[in-house]
Order: sequence, then C-alpha cells, then structure tokens
Amino acid sequence: RTGVVWFSSPLSLLQLKNKFMKKLPRDAEASNVLVGEVDFLESPFIAFVRLQQAVMLGALTEVPVPTRFLFILLGPKGKAKSYHEIGRAIATLMSDEAKDRQDLIAGIDEFLDEVIVLPPGEWDPAIRIEPPKSLPSSDKRKNMYSGGENLQMNGDTPHDGGHGGGGHGDCEELQRTGRFCGGLIKDIRRKAPFFASDFLDALNIQSLSAILFIYLATVTNAITFGGLLGDATENMQGVLESFLGTAVTGAIFCLFAGQPLTILSSTGPVLVFERLLFNFSKDNDFDYLEFRLWIGLWSAFQCLILVATDASFLVKYFTRFTEEGFSSLISFIFIYDAFKKMIKLADHYPINSHFKVDYITHYSCACEPLDPGSPSSVTLSLLALQYNSTIAWSSLTAKECLKYGGQLVGNNCHYVPDITLMSFILFFGTYTCSMALKKFKTSRYFPTTARKLISDFAIILSILIFCGIDALVGVDTPKLIVPSEFKPTSPERGWFIPPFGGNPWWVYLAAAIPALLVTILIFMDQQITAVIVNRKEHKLKKGAGYHLDLFWVAILMIVCSFMGLPWYVAATVISIAHIDSLKMETETSAPGEQPKFLGVREQRVTGIIVFILTGVSVFMAPILKFIPMPVLYGVFLYMGVASLNGVQFMDRLKLLLMPLKHQPDFIYLRHVPLRRVHLFTFLQVVCLALLWILKSTVAAIIFPVMILALVAVRKAMDYLFSQHDLSFLDDVIPEKDKKKKEDEKKKKKKK
Amino acid sequence: RTGVVWFSSPLSLLQLKNKFMKKLPRDAEASNVLVGEVDFLESPFIAFVRLQQAVMLGALTEVPVPTRFLFILLGPKGKAKSYHEIGRAIATLMSDEAKDRQDLIAGIDEFLDEVIVLPPGEWDPAIRIEPPKSLPSSDKRKNMYSGGENLQMNGDTPHDGGHGGGGHGDCEELQRTGRFCGGLIKDIRRKAPFFASDFLDALNIQSLSAILFIYLATVTNAITFGGLLGDATENMQGVLESFLGTAVTGAIFCLFAGQPLTILSSTGPVLVFERLLFNFSKDNDFDYLEFRLWIGLWSAFQCLILVATDASFLVKYFTRFTEEGFSSLISFIFIYDAFKKMIKLADHYPINSHFKVDYITHYSCACEPLDPGSPSSVTLSLLALQYNSTIAWSSLTAKECLKYGGQLVGNNCHYVPDITLMSFILFFGTYTCSMALKKFKTSRYFPTTARKLISDFAIILSILIFCGIDALVGVDTPKLIVPSEFKPTSPERGWFIPPFGGNPWWVYLAAAIPALLVTILIFMDQQITAVIVNRKEHKLKKGAGYHLDLFWVAILMIVCSFMGLPWYVAATVISIAHIDSLKMETETSAPGEQPKFLGVREQRVTGIIVFILTGVSVFMAPILKFIPMPVLYGVFLYMGVASLNGVQFMDRLKLLLMPLKHQPDFIYLRHVPLRRVHLFTFLQVVCLALLWILKSTVAAIIFPVMILALVAVRKAMDYLFSQHDLSFLDDVIPEKDKKKKEDEKKKKKKK
Repeated sequence: RTGVVWFSSPLSLLQLKNKFMKKLPRDAEASNVLVGEVDFLESPFIAFVRLQQAVMLGALTEVPVPTRFLFILLGPKGKAKSYHEIGRAIATLMSDEAKDRQDLIAGIDEFLDEVIVLPPGEWDPAIRIEPPKSLPSSDKRKNMYSGGENLQMNGDTPHDGGHGGGGHGDCEELQRTGRFCGGLIKDIRRKAPFFASDFLDALNIQSLSAILFIYLATVTNAITFGGLLGDATENMQGVLESFLGTAVTGAIFCLFAGQPLTILSSTGPVLVFERLLFNFSKDNDFDYLEFRLWIGLWSAFQCLILVATDASFLVKYFTRFTEEGFSSLISFIFIYDAFKKMIKLADHYPINSHFKVDYITHYSCACEPLDPGSPSSVTLSLLALQYNSTIAWSSLTAKECLKYGGQLVGNNCHYVPDITLMSFILFFGTYTCSMALKKFKTSRYFPTTARKLISDFAIILSILIFCGIDALVGVDTPKLIVPSEFKPTSPERGWFIPPFGGNPWWVYLAAAIPALLVTILIFMDQQITAVIVNRKEHKLKKGAGYHLDLFWVAILMIVCSFMGLPWYVAATVISIAHIDSLKMETETSAPGEQPKFLGVREQRVTGIIVFILTGVSVFMAPILKFIPMPVLYGVFLYMGVASLNGVQFMDRLKLLLMPLKHQPDFIYLRHVPLRRVHLFTFLQVVCLALLWILKSTVAAIIFPVMILALVAVRKAMDYLFSQHDLSFLDDVIPEKDKKKKEDEKKKKKKK
Repeated sequence: RTGVVWFSSPLSLLQLKNKFMKKLPRDAEASNVLVGEVDFLESPFIAFVRLQQAVMLGALTEVPVPTRFLFILLGPKGKAKSYHEIGRAIATLMSDEAKDRQDLIAGIDEFLDEVIVLPPGEWDPAIRIEPPKSLPSSDKRKNMYSGGENLQMNGDTPHDGGHGGGGHGDCEELQRTGRFCGGLIKDIRRKAPFFASDFLDALNIQSLSAILFIYLATVTNAITFGGLLGDATENMQGVLESFLGTAVTGAIFCLFAGQPLTILSSTGPVLVFERLLFNFSKDNDFDYLEFRLWIGLWSAFQCLILVATDASFLVKYFTRFTEEGFSSLISFIFIYDAFKKMIKLADHYPINSHFKVDYITHYSCACEPLDPGSPSSVTLSLLALQYNSTIAWSSLTAKECLKYGGQLVGNNCHYVPDITLMSFILFFGTYTCSMALKKFKTSRYFPTTARKLISDFAIILSILIFCGIDALVGVDTPKLIVPSEFKPTSPERGWFIPPFGGNPWWVYLAAAIPALLVTILIFMDQQITAVIVNRKEHKLKKGAGYHLDLFWVAILMIVCSFMGLPWYVAATVISIAHIDSLKMETETSAPGEQPKFLGVREQRVTGIIVFILTGVSVFMAPILKFIPMPVLYGVFLYMGVASLNGVQFMDRLKLLLMPLKHQPDFIYLRHVPLRRVHLFTFLQVVCLALLWILKSTVAAIIFPVMILALVAVRKAMDYLFSQHDLSFLDDVIPEKDKKKKEDEKKKKKKK
C-alpha cells in the first residue's frame, strides 16, 4: 500500500504525529513529492524513483512512515504555481493502488479520463471546496462507470446518507427453516457468541447517558400508564404493578432476548383491552384477574406456537412503506400525547384570567360549614362531629374541608396560580434545550470530544437544567411521585393470582378466543418494532432475533399473568430513542473528513440497568420527587420528534412544501418523477390519516393489526407504480435484480 | 456578447422562457453546442461555425435569443459520456469573451491553464457540487493570478461576504474643505438630487414592515425613556414630552437630514445629564427648564460651529476597531437592558413560590382599618371620615384601601399570580419567534417570494402572534399604555419655555460650560452612529451627510430646548434595525445562484411615517393597549442580538471558542497568525469591559466620549501590530498601498 504524505516543516511533524498515525494503516509507506524552482535549469526536470526497500527519511514525512516512492520536479523560475499543481496531481495519483509500470501508466490514463474539471471563473481558485461527505470506494467508482446504474438500485450509493435500510426481504434472520423451532434455535446460535461482548461493549460514558435518559422515559411511562390502568381496572392493576411489571419483564428481556436494544413497555392497545376486559368481567361477575390470567396463558401458548412454526418470517412483508408509516404514526401519537398531557395539566390547574392586580382584596377562598338548613349537611356534620366536636373550619386545607363536609366559598377556589404557566415553560424549555444541545455536535464550537459529550448527555442536561429552574422559581409544579411502598395497589389481591376457583370451568377454555386477539396484537406490535429496531440504517452487527424476542415476550406474559401485572411488548419510540442515544461515530478524523456513523453500541447492559433502576425506584422516591412532570413530558415530545428524524416518509412530506430548486439531492428524486413521489407520499398520508381516525374510535384495540392494512395498500401499489419507481421509493429489489444478485453470490461461492 | 445556452426539449422552453430572460443581457446571442453518437462514423467529427449574422433557430434554444455560434460533435457509438463532457467544456469556454480566432485559441489555452481539477475517487461524479456563493468577475480572476495579493488588502474579495466596510479614511464625504460651511454645502449638493427618489424608492411592501417594526420600537423607547425622565426630573419632562419630542425631531430629521436612515432617539447619557442638571438646579434654586434652555442653546451654537468648520472630518479616525467596538457595546447594553426590564417586571409582580394547591383556603388578602390604637391611624381614620363616615373596608381595592388609610392584611397581599411567568413566556417567545421567522428566508420551504415576505414581516408577525397568545390566555400582563391627552406632564409648565426671568443673568453665560459637555456627548454619539449607518457593508448609494446631519441635530436641539422637550441624537441599535429591515436582495436568480445583497432601500418615507405615527399615538391608545410590554422587550432583545450580526468583532469572539479545523474561511485568518487575531480581539474585549464598568458608575455621562479612548487604544496598537496584520483586521489601507491607489487614480484621470 502506498500512502501519500506531503512534505512539511519539522515543527508540525511533532504536532500532528499522533493524530494522523491513527488514520493510517499499519503497513503504510510514504511517497514523497518534491517540487521546486532553481536558477540553473532551462527546462523542467522530472524524476520518479521507486526504492527497492522503503526507508525512513527522517523529518521529511509528516508521520514517521518509511518512504517508498520519490517524485522530484525541478524547473526554471517563474512557474512555481504550475509545478505545485503537477506535484498535487502526482500526489493524488499516488493514492491509487499500482503494482507495476503498466499499472502506473494505466493509472495516469485513467486519472486523466476520470478527473472532474471545474471551469475557471466559476470557482475562486483560492477557496476551499468542501470534500464530499462520504468517499466512494474505488471499486464502486469503477462499477459506476462500467456497470451503469444497477448498483444504485439498492439505495446504497454514498450520498443517500443513512437512508438505505428496508428491504429485509432476503436477510438471513427471516428465512423460513421449515423445522420445529428452527428459527428460534438459529436465533440462539446466532446471538450466543455475542453474549460476553454484549456486556463488554457497554463500557463507555455514552452508556451512562443512555441509561439515565431511557430510565426517566421508562419511569414516566410506567407512572402515566399505571395511573390510566388503575382508573380502568379500579386499581386491580395500578402504578406499582406497572412499575414492577416494567422492571421484571424489561430486565429479563434485555438479558436474554435476541435484540436487547428493544425496550419493552406497556402500549395503548393493551390498555384498551384491559379496560374492555375489566368491564366485561364486572358485568358478568367474572373474577377479572383470573380470567385475565387464562387469557394471558392462552395467548402466550399461541405466541409460542408462532415461535415454533417460524411465523415471524412473515415480517419480511413489512417493507419500508409499512415500517416507516407505522413508526411515523406512533411518533405522531407520542407527540400528540405529550401535548394532551400538558392540556390536561392546564385543565387541572386553571389560570384565573380575570385577575386584576388591584383587586387582590376581592379574591378569597375559605372553608365554611355547609348551610345547616340543607339536608345533606346534617349527616355530614355528624360525620364531622366524630372527628372533632368543634372544627376550626378556617384552618382546614381544601381537601380536609371537603372531607369533613365543609364547602369552599369564594371566587378564587377553582384557580391555581402560576403552575400551568410554569409547566408550559418547563415543557417547551426542556424540548427546545434538548434539541439545541443534541444539535450541538455539528456546531463549530469547542473540540469534538466536548461537543460529543454535550450532545450525548443532551437530554439529561436539559432535564437537570429545567429541574434547576423549577427549583429556583419554586412553583409547586406537579412532580414525579413514584410509589414508595412495595405492595399491590388494591388490598383485595396478592402477588400471585390463583389460576382456579374464581370462574366457572368453561371460562378457562373460552379465554382462548379473546387470547387470539391479544396474540395478534402482541405479535404485530412486537414484530413491527423489532423490524424498525433492526433497520439496515442502524448498521447492527450482531444480528436480530425475531423468534427469540417473541419467545421471551410469551414467557414473560405467563409470568405477568400469574403475578397480575400488565403485559409488555416492544415500544417503538422508546426503543428508537434507546438506539439514538447509543449511536457511535468515528472518533479521529483527518481535517475536512466528516465523522462517519459506525453503528450502535449493541449490548445488554444499558437495558438491564434501566430496568433494575426502575425496580428500585421505590427507594429513589426522595430524589425523583424533584423532577417536574412537565419536564418529562418535554422529553416525550423530544423523543417523538427525534424518532421522525431520517425517516424517508418525513423527507418526502417535507418535499411537498419545497420548491423544486431547493429540494435536496435524494437518490429517488433522480430516478422517480416528482409527481410519482408525491403520489406515493399522498397515499401513505391517506393511510395514516385513516389509521389515526380508527385509533380514536373503539377500534383502537385492533390498532396494531392495521399494519396489515398498510401491507395490503403497499401490495396494491405494485399495480399503480412501476417496479423501477418502487425500488427507489420502497427499497425493494426488483425480481430481475434479485436473481442477478443471487447468481453472483452463487458464482462467488463456487470460486 | 455570447451567452451559452443548452439544447433542451421544446417543453421546458415554454416553462423557463420568462424566468431566464430576466437574467440575460439585452443583446445576448446564443451559442449552441450539439453532440451525438451516430452509427456511420468511425472517428469523431467536429465542426465549429460562426455565423455572419445571428439567426433565430426556433425551439433549439431554451430562451428566444438569436444563435451566433454552433459547435457540432458527432462520433461513433459508445463514447457518449466523453462527447458530453467535451460539449460541456466547449459550452463553458464559450461563456468567455472572444473577439477573433486568436482570442478563441488563447481562450482555450487559458481555459486549460486555469481549470480546476478534482481528482477522481474523491468526488462521486454523479453528485452536484454547489456553485460558489459569489462569482469573481473575470477581471478580478485575472488580477488574482497576475497581480498577487494587493487586491485582497481592501477586504473586498468575493468571499468575505459583507465584511468589507470600515476604512472611510478617504471617502469623499469626510474630506476637509477648509472653507466656511464647505462640508455642509457639499452635503446638501450631494443629497439634493436624490430628494425626489427618496420618496419614490419607498414604494415597496418591505417599507410597510419596516414602518411597523420601527414604530413599535420607537414608541416603546419613548415610553420607557419618558418614564425614567419623569422620575429624574419630577415630571418636568415626562412621557408625553418624550413622545412629542421623538415625533417632532424624528420627522424633521428624516425629512431633511443627510442620512434619513438614521433614527433619532433619546439616549442614556442624556438621561444621566438631565438627572444631574435637575438636582443641581434644585439644590441651587435655579429654574431647571430655563437653565436647560440656555445649555441647549449654547450647545446647539457649539454644534453649529463644528458644522461650519467641517469638524466632522475627524470621524475618519473611527476605524473598524472603534466603530465595531462601540456598536457591539451599545448592542450588549441593549440586550442587558431588555433583561433588566424583565427582572424589574418580575420584582413588581412577585410569584408566590410557597403556594400549595391544597392550602388555597389559607391564602387571603383583605383590607382592614388600621389598628385604632396606633397613633397614625387616628389621623388617617379622620381622613377616611372625610370621604365616608362608614367605609366598607372589605369592598375596597388594594389602592383604595391604602388611600383611605386602611392596611392590607393577609399572606397573599404581596404576590401576583401568573403575570411574571406569562411575561417571560411572551418575552422569550417573541424573541425566538422573530429569530426563527427572520431565518426562514434561507429555509428550503415555500417559494422565494413567500419566504421573503415572511422574513421581512418576521417581527410584526411575532408581535401579532404573541399578542394573540396573550389575549388568549387572558392574564393581565402589563400593556403598552400611551398617554391619551395632549398636555405637559407637569401642570407647572407650558409648551414654551421663556428664556429670561427665572435665573440670574450670569447663569445664561455660565451655561456655556455644561453645554460644552453636552456638545461633546452629542457630537460623539451622533457621528459614531452615522459612521455605523454609513458602513461600506450597507452598500449605500446616495452617500452620507455627516455635516448636514449634525446641522439638523443642532437646529432640533434649539427647538426642543424652547419647548422643554428632551434632546435627541442618532440611536445606534434602532438605526441598524431600520437598515436591516430595508435590505434588498436580487429577486430573480438562475437555479443554483445565490441571491445577492444589493443595498438598502434608501429613502425618507419610512422614517417620516414612523415619527408621524409616534405623534398620533395619542389617538391610537385603544389599539396599542393590546400589546403587552414583555412582547416589546422581546423585540428589543431581538434588535440587540440582530445588530451584532455580521460584525467582525463578534466573528472573532466566536473564533476564540472554535477549534482550528472548524474555523470559517475569513480572509484575515489567511493572512494574520491566529494568535495575533486573538490578541487583537482580547484587547478589544478589555477596552469594552472597561467601558462597561465606567458606564455603570457616575461616569456614564461621559460615555460617548469614551470613543476617544477606543481611538487612542487603536492608535497604540499601531506599535503592537504590523501594518500588514492591521490592514486585514481593521481594514485600514497601508500607506504604501494608499499611495499606489492614488497614483492609479491620477493615471486614470489623465487618460
């Protein structure tokens, strides 16, 4: 190999030594290009030397590598600039691979053929043209010239930056084995060798930021979900069950599952199902928890059948269209929910918008006993007498007042000052701050390491900053209150649900029918998220484990059913946030080189610690109570918006608003007519709008099944769009190309 | 002239016809380049045709211009790509000027010499390299190659984008005539021909946005300044005087002054002076307004002497160092003041940070009569009896309560809910929204016209949006209350101050001494702002009028002194905001071309209307009262930050935080060692820090005089820095280059 190194002064040698050495391969050799003007020559003199043995030439090279080639150009005075340019050309030329004289000459020929020429006048020769974001390898370059455009079909050209993905049609994980548990066994075989590295790979400061970020997201989710579940089931399952369930299932899943980057969480459809089930049980005098246990057992059994029969191979029908549509929709719902929570909060702490500063003397709220004349007041007063014969009404708090049968009198009782506005400040502040700090990585300020650290800890920093602001202002905003005692929310139940005795025997069998719905729900929700997590863009190296994931979801379902805890599946947005917070980039870079996305820190540690922390949150209540809820809602808003980043569907949505000349240079825009792109986007939008409407009705329960609708629409599109167009928009490789590729593979194997 | 036009299908011909025609000069002729593959040729065939008479070739050219040149290349099949490239090269070549065959051949030679070559491998040949932001003219290009670097000395190279400026050392406006009123007469002669166009040039929607924006800034300024002045002078001059003074002086100045883009306003040093003067008058039993009248008359007289003696030529000693230092400092003060106002507002409406929702019953504030036992209460109660023998204490408002001698009892009396927090939301919201909308011009969305409109009306839109939000929430935030009656604030004075009778005769003469201070204040403040307004970067075409400006300031001072109104000078930040809101850019642009900054809409109309509106604000009180003050403070914050944009000093400050490899390609960074640049910045920062400290002491009154300190420091730097370094950092042309330039001018004149 030859490396090109420029001649430079001995001073910078010392400075740059370490930095550059990292970028050079081990056995690199230098090629020195020396140009200069002399008095005594009349015509230029050129010499090109190839040394038999590479030698160290001391301070001549910037980095201490031995020199193999020498190019010397000396010429008469006055043409320094052109000598310089010749030197540059030779230096560039030398960065190509060459074995013998023929290669060298061919190299020069090819160089001249493929050189890009910028006309004079357009570019000030003094300015620096930014190098391209990613360098095509020389192989690819050759193919581009000779092979035409087939290579671009995979959406894998250098400048579609991370928009590859999709097209898991022929990935190894999803091939049907046809054997009993074949997929599961393959999954275990594939993942087992990585098990040790799954722990070692976590040793990085980035993991800490990921743990704190995802922990707070998980805890917030557990609390809000637990609260809603408690409402829906009259506290048969409440906040503490939600916490315990999240912790147990999450930790076990991250420890053993095929894709430990997936974060389990409770989801909307499960909540709807529980609500319906509880009401049904109540109306029919069934024992809710026992009935639920049997549904869970049946559903887990059905899931295990799906695992055993490799049913997850169906996932390959989820193309980019389906996957991005679904994940965008989930993200929109996330954003919508964050705002909904804030509006609910504002309703709970209404602002007195008629307040006038001068009329402060006219606002009051006092506790008074009910009018003695009214009938209800007598009984209540009697109740009050039980506690205390003479109640000091005016010293009671609002809650006590109502409890003892008093009434709140005054024009200020229903208003709460400051809290709503402060909450909105915290909400938008946290969101904006997270966004700004996250983007700080690409700013020009501070050294790369500092920027990366700030960017990695963006969300944690924002949370801390706004917790600080909240503490400073001192307004009594609603805080994150986690349960501090470890016992079931309802006193009527224990930690083990006995499987028999509560319901008639036929219920145990009949439970198989609702279980079918749960199974479909779980399968769809789990697998679409798994597909999104395992996207090609994420450059995961340790492989997926669709069957193994589903296996553990089923096992954990059995555990949860017996313990009376909610059921858990993979949560799309939190999983994407988890991956985002673990992205790796090249650390050292030569000047002008862009840092490259290397992949995700694939490991089990962050997930496991997040869920262990969730479990012990009960003991962390004194710390957590300083975190205002609006701050966490702001983090949710951030997660929703961030998970829309880099999604082709969103890019296409933005295209709708852009005039032609400002559109970015997406690969599909070069090959598919703009109208077709817009039509594709439009159809996707219509699908999602219909799903959104469905989601707002009672049909919300079958929401994940709607993925099938997306798949169907996508299939229908095959008749509307040409194979060529779709291959660019949906990253599906046309049949003919697929065959070609397979043939090539076979050929390679034969060799 | 030849234009290069590509062959394209007849369809796009119709589409692009209008757009492109605008970019072509009137007598443009086309050169058609046609390349193609044919079966029947074995070697390429080339023909270059020059027609005696240009002819229209119909749909061959994209735009309907006659064709003069034809280049035809036909070759055997298989090499279409290289034919295409040859065609491109010829087309580019044809965009150069050529008169005969020699020129053409020389052109090809030069083309090949100056072509920029990008090595293969580095650039994917399929991607589009963004064209440079500004094209160097072909003259400049030639000079760059031949003449070396002298040309760059003026900081005028294409890519220093608007950072030129400074160096008004030899501009015509500031040359000393040596004759009585020579400068003034020249100013009038220079500006008179533009007087009509000063009205016609305002006919643009942009003017409307500028008027509304500057009007609101002016009104807010007048109100806050008037309030402070009222405090300082016990209402001898108050808000209404401030309004009237602003309106009268501003309108007259904009109508007649040399630089109508300058906005007059009252400034900090004047306020400090008035405060000192009032206290001095009070202590010595002088008639304040009469004393002030005489000081004003003396000062105006001294200013007129400065005008008559062309003293403004001294301005040429304000280099970029001084000018940018001063304007940055004023901007910082502006930003600081915006925050100070918000903090004052927060102090005025304290938040009850101990409020707990549940304890709402414990908060109260009631009006009660003073304890009858206390001695003062007796007299007060007697007073109260005057009004009403039995006061219904509880029904009184807070103000009434205190007025009638009651006291406010309760733990909630000193707290005001919501207002502070809402104010901060409005403050930061308006600022952020203005910034975002202003930047919208460079976004990718929507057509250029829409983006430009949104960007032009950014501040007005933000104000409207946040007034809307304020109205929606309904919290009683402090609003913009303008006086609604037209009479002096103090009943003790009228609209004309009699010059004699109030003070002993020697005071009339002694007033000349404080007047000297005022003169220096006014001169410095006025001229530094004028220099900033007339910066080279603003590309003003109608010339400055330093002498004429000062003349009108002096005349208006006489008027204001007689009417007892505050004195006015040019306000730096508002003037910059005025200019910013009137910037023009090229409207049509060929694809890929960047819009160019053309200059500022120089006219008198926006200023005049702004001040007329200020005058009639008295009648607009019912509309203005919907605008919350925090929104306007947000606008002030925006103005402060925006006026720091594009200032070289700020760029250099940012450099301090940037690692070497991320630093932008500033021209001075190429020629001055980074340490020197940092040293230069550091010295400037130290100067400004000292000025800031001075400004916070009583020395604030001589603040504008401190410009002289800056000038002195800058002179001292001549010994610290080399001429070469300073010429890049401070845009001062070294003596030798100056001479050269003058020689060249002389030569040209001789020709």
